[in-house]
Amino acid sequence: MHWAKVVGSAVGAAAILALGIILGHFAIPKAADPPDPQDLDQEILKTVLAQLDASKIRENLRELSKEPHLASSPRDEALVEFILQRWKDQLSGLDSAVTSTYEVLLSFPNQEQPNLVELVDSNETVLHSFQPSEENVTGEQAGPNVVQPYAAYAPPGTPKGLLVYANQGTEEDFKELQARGITLQGTIALTRYGGAGRGAKAENAAKHGVVGVLVYTDPADINDGKSLPSETFPNSWGLPPSGVERGSYYKYFGDPLTPYLPAHPASFRLDPNNTSGFPPIPAQPIGFQDAKELLCNLSGPSAPDSWQGALGCDYKLGPGFSTNGGLPAGSMVKLSVHNRLVLRNSSNVLGIIRGAVEPDRYVIYGNHRDSWIHGAVDPSSGTAVLLEITRVLGTLLKKGTWRPRRSIIFASWGAEEFGLIGSTEFTEEFFSKLQERAVAYLNVDISVFANATLRAQGTPPVQSVIFSAAKEIGAPGPSGLSIYDNWIRYSNRSSPVYGLIPSMGTLGAGSDYAPFIHFLGISSMDLAYTYDKSKTSARIYPTYHTAFDTFEYVEKFVDPGFSSHQAVARTAGSVLLRLSDSFFLPLNVSDYSETLRSFLQAAQDHLGAQLQQHNINLGPLVTAVEKFEKAAAALIQHITTLQSSSPDSLQVRTVNDQLMLLERAFLNPRAFPEEQYYSHVLWAPRTSSVATFPGLANACSRAEGTSPGSEAWAEVQRQLSVVVMALEGAAATLRPVADL
Amino acid sequence: MHWAKVVGSAVGAAAILALGIILGHFAIPKAADPPDPQDLDQEILKTVLAQLDASKIRENLRELSKEPHLASSPRDEALVEFILQRWKDQLSGLDSAVTSTYEVLLSFPNQEQPNLVELVDSNETVLHSFQPSEENVTGEQAGPNVVQPYAAYAPPGTPKGLLVYANQGTEEDFKELQARGITLQGTIALTRYGGAGRGAKAENAAKHGVVGVLVYTDPADINDGKSLPSETFPNSWGLPPSGVERGSYYKYFGDPLTPYLPAHPASFRLDPNNTSGFPPIPAQPIGFQDAKELLCNLSGPSAPDSWQGALGCDYKLGPGFSTNGGLPAGSMVKLSVHNRLVLRNSSNVLGIIRGAVEPDRYVIYGNHRDSWIHGAVDPSSGTAVLLEITRVLGTLLKKGTWRPRRSIIFASWGAEEFGLIGSTEFTEEFFSKLQERAVAYLNVDISVFANATLRAQGTPPVQSVIFSAAKEIGAPGPSGLSIYDNWIRYSNRSSPVYGLIPSMGTLGAGSDYAPFIHFLGISSMDLAYTYDKSKTSARIYPTYHTAFDTFEYVEKFVDPGFSSHQAVARTAGSVLLRLSDSFFLPLNVSDYSETLRSFLQAAQDHLGAQLQQHNINLGPLVTAVEKFEKAAAALIQHITTLQSSSPDSLQVRTVNDQLMLLERAFLNPRAFPEEQYYSHVLWAPRTSSVATFPGLANACSRAEGTSPGSEAWAEVQRQLSVVVMALEGAAATLRPVADL
Repeated sequence: MHWAKVVGSAVGAAAILALGIILGHFAIPKAADPPDPQDLDQEILKTVLAQLDASKIRENLRELSKEPHLASSPRDEALVEFILQRWKDQLSGLDSAVTSTYEVLLSFPNQEQPNLVELVDSNETVLHSFQPSEENVTGEQAGPNVVQPYAAYAPPGTPKGLLVYANQGTEEDFKELQARGITLQGTIALTRYGGAGRGAKAENAAKHGVVGVLVYTDPADINDGKSLPSETFPNSWGLPPSGVERGSYYKYFGDPLTPYLPAHPASFRLDPNNTSGFPPIPAQPIGFQDAKELLCNLSGPSAPDSWQGALGCDYKLGPGFSTNGGLPAGSMVKLSVHNRLVLRNSSNVLGIIRGAVEPDRYVIYGNHRDSWIHGAVDPSSGTAVLLEITRVLGTLLKKGTWRPRRSIIFASWGAEEFGLIGSTEFTEEFFSKLQERAVAYLNVDISVFANATLRAQGTPPVQSVIFSAAKEIGAPGPSGLSIYDNWIRYSNRSSPVYGLIPSMGTLGAGSDYAPFIHFLGISSMDLAYTYDKSKTSARIYPTYHTAFDTFEYVEKFVDPGFSSHQAVARTAGSVLLRLSDSFFLPLNVSDYSETLRSFLQAAQDHLGAQLQQHNINLGPLVTAVEKFEKAAAALIQHITTLQSSSPDSLQVRTVNDQLMLLERAFLNPRAFPEEQYYSHVLWAPRTSSVATFPGLANACSRAEGTSPGSEAWAEVQRQLSVVVMALEGAAATLRPVADL
Repeated sequence: MHWAKVVGSAVGAAAILALGIILGHFAIPKAADPPDPQDLDQEILKTVLAQLDASKIRENLRELSKEPHLASSPRDEALVEFILQRWKDQLSGLDSAVTSTYEVLLSFPNQEQPNLVELVDSNETVLHSFQPSEENVTGEQAGPNVVQPYAAYAPPGTPKGLLVYANQGTEEDFKELQARGITLQGTIALTRYGGAGRGAKAENAAKHGVVGVLVYTDPADINDGKSLPSETFPNSWGLPPSGVERGSYYKYFGDPLTPYLPAHPASFRLDPNNTSGFPPIPAQPIGFQDAKELLCNLSGPSAPDSWQGALGCDYKLGPGFSTNGGLPAGSMVKLSVHNRLVLRNSSNVLGIIRGAVEPDRYVIYGNHRDSWIHGAVDPSSGTAVLLEITRVLGTLLKKGTWRPRRSIIFASWGAEEFGLIGSTEFTEEFFSKLQERAVAYLNVDISVFANATLRAQGTPPVQSVIFSAAKEIGAPGPSGLSIYDNWIRYSNRSSPVYGLIPSMGTLGAGSDYAPFIHFLGISSMDLAYTYDKSKTSARIYPTYHTAFDTFEYVEKFVDPGFSSHQAVARTAGSVLLRLSDSFFLPLNVSDYSETLRSFLQAAQDHLGAQLQQHNINLGPLVTAVEKFEKAAAALIQHITTLQSSSPDSLQVRTVNDQLMLLERAFLNPRAFPEEQYYSHVLWAPRTSSVATFPGLANACSRAEGTSPGSEAWAEVQRQLSVVVMALEGAAATLRPVADL
């Protein structure tokens, strides 16, 4: 071959080789390249929402509610196995599922010696006996597993005394009776549900010498005044006259004997006799049928207008019965309460889907399993939704179609009705790793109260993800509106940032989110479908905690067709996927700025002058709120900038950790030493009417009227510093991470 | 061109193109590829160690110690500026540096009315006055800024009484005096340093009716018995006869008025009159020259042998002076203490190097800046090392040669001598972000006590990184040994895992690491060079907290040539780089297994029988330790596996978070409610002699002798559950992250 030709060929070959090298280098993605960051997949999201099936939710509910499943009962244990098997299913289960069992202190009536409410004369001769249980109106109220109405954790005892009517049993109610000269010492107080917590009624009563408490549900508060059998279940969704709300009368939450410790068999337990938080005197709930007989025969002056109800008579205050009524004047009411405290095993069921990219970040979704009776609404409507969501996600998982970016933990909690026990023990057992790794907690307890609209409660950062989900799902019914647009019609507020938006509620301690938000500082939320408040003033769905909360009740009156159940399942499913799959966590921390600003404004408006008088200056609080606002806005801006670039995984993880851990920065275990578990300085219980930082508001209430320089005013100053420190710490968490 | 030839050429070209594509694709790294994970660079490490310069440390020390720099004094403030300017230097500074100032409660003697120790008769006529300050032996002891010897936070007062000798002022010492029938009521107690904390001497004394306390340093405890001027500084490293150890007599740490809150000007403050932790009675430290005069003239029975010292006389117990001695019999000792509590500004200086890859992970390295007088050893020997390390790293940084993987925070703490105040306020202010992000805290306070060997204290996970560093650095002196091999000759133990290894100490509350480990649960360590304990029994270097701790003292007697300073700088520098730059964090969490196993063994051996008698079973503790061991071993195995693959950044971050957060899992803010700041269930103060879990050991000590079923025995059970819960939580943190 000619040399020049060889050179020419070689040059040509070199050029081609070079072209190849260039093509190879730039045009073909490397197999070893990191895959595109796994982000929320809209197609998967659509698939999931489409597959969530109302009829399957209905089937779940029928199974879950077919028998009473009181915490630790054999049926409750059977449902543990039922859920475990679902989550271990080969075709639609999760990666793993386990049960976790605690030995906890529960309280039950004595089957051999039922609780009684009677009328007796001074020789203790029984003149009359009231109903010990609900009427069997659908054939389901008489089974051996229908627990008699009782006030869980109320102490046993047989107090008797003249009856007084004490309205809702608040501190103010008893003061009012005292002010009106009604003798309280040695009486039995009849109170109605609402206004004060269950246990608080007995606590307040005992302070005034009352020896026993009856609690009933007034038709005015639950049935929009209706009280006839023909107007109530099974003829409507109303509470029947014999219906009785059961409930826990324990003041705190978690296993009463093992505060701050998981209730393992070997754990240290308090002496039940020295445990605080139980009602100090016997208490017993009754139906409004019995309450009517008692209340409409009372003597004494008329109760104030706001104390009147819908029992069809003028409510009097007592003490004792009138001489011209249907009950013997001079007779006393006698309570025989035989409740027993028992150590019982109660289980959580936990199911896990392992995250593909960030397995050490947990999105937690839970509901309790235990009910008082059949619990079709409470909690099985939520569990039916939970099981449908795990079925759909589990099926995608088992098919290999999908695995979330982060891990998802599903939980079926035990013994919630006794005081959020299963969930609280879980947070105690896994305190460290949950604090380190939990992104958010989603609770769906009662999924459907009624058919009108979504109702969401949560801390500010979850508002955005709930809104995003609600905007893309159709509301049940013919409106054609999204869940979001329907919601805004029923419940809205004007946000200084967003204008008119649906109104989110805040989180108290009404369900299993409480230990997550208050004890662990994990951003939490609770979702449900609920009433049109313009159409009913019921304080909750009427058969709540009664033997009438059955499958038939749901199917006939709460959600025929289960379309609201499906709407909640879709909303919860969408929120769950967004939290578990989004590259950037969909927690808008800057939404806390609005809350802080409104808390600050309320403090300035309602406490400012009073504080000024005691030389307590809100200046540092103003500065702290401003620092927070600035840091939050800058972080959101930083995220926007990152989103438009190609951030690496660690950059996004850094930001996501800031978003996740913000809520933790509001925790201070030393803020409220007297409040068991409550460490979140923004959401601890607020007894003051001023809608501001609870520690500050409560301390001001307590200090009011004490002398300048008192310990109570020092505590106001301390609470102010506690909240300033928390806000400064929260701002520091949000600032660029290499700034101090 | 012939068609076949064209085809042939095309085929050949295609082959070459293909080859090029293959080469381009596989052989050339993509620009867009993520860089190799940034790991510890051995070349950088070598460069840093080589550049750490003994003569520059010497220069730093001369500047830092040239004037007294008591906390909040003008010179202390000047050093704040000095350090700030170093860290802001254009050529050798850090990315940023700031000061952070707190308003804290300090205690000073009154310059107008010096504290006095006198002999008086019953008419208060002064018979004799003792030295109010140290002798001016080098010309540096008489300056206006040499603070008079005093007991910081001891209350003002002018108690007088007969003198008794109370040894070290422990609870046992006073009980011994009582048992021997020595009247204590109304006396002044002379005690020597050691045995009990400073403040504890006054607290114990007050419980027995003692009205004032003197504290001195016995030559037996500090000078190996030597006490003549010719045998002490400036003629040797010994403590001169007039030397007096100052110190804080406050019981806790942090600003006394703002526990758990950063001491910002607007923060809530306790009333100083209601603050706990100050000595209950006046106290004053004196030199052994004065102590000799007092002690060698005491009357009464001889003190026990173990109470005798090296003052050259038989120590008697008193009360009062003997009739045949050099001091008037019947005369009383009168203390005039005029200490004042003052709110003062005290600053930390904070310098930051931003991490290149994980800026949200912090390695913190600090030392305090404030001294009692010149503080050449304490703390300037440490600060001189700190500034040399920042110079070398800052220079590399400014040149663009190096940037660490993680962020490094350097700190010069204020007001440590008064009770770790600057560091504690820092941990309070940045509680949340430090808990979330701090990898480890490295403290180098006194860097060189003496020239013999490295001394390291820390929690188990830091042992491995200190050993790694110590193995690669030569020990000062002619031995040719590594620091590690030299260390093992002086202080070693037999580890069941590693065989013979250097012995690491544990962390008490002696320096600024205390809030990091006890309050925040951050893996911490303290490094220094120290004595050959076979050659001296000095409890600390002799001029500690006296006016004789000067540059001359260091240069002549502590570390001529500064090679031990350099050795500490190299060790600290290497530890710092390893922590900030290693891809996998060099924290060997499985080294905790050895500690837990030994704590468990001690509990079984020394408490087991006693616990059994009270039906307290150690079984759950055994199980928890086993779970921890298993989880730790599995995690180490997992890391080994990852190291041999090509783990992605998030996989490594996940593991590193487990390593970082393990120490946090041992925190329980509710474990020891009466112990301010102490939340780490393994390292809280242990008063019991059994080397086991402190809560368990202390509770057992307190319960001993109480009746079965007592509250004290219930507390033992609670403490057992607290430690079991912590170990179970720690094991859960180490287990695979998607397991529960």
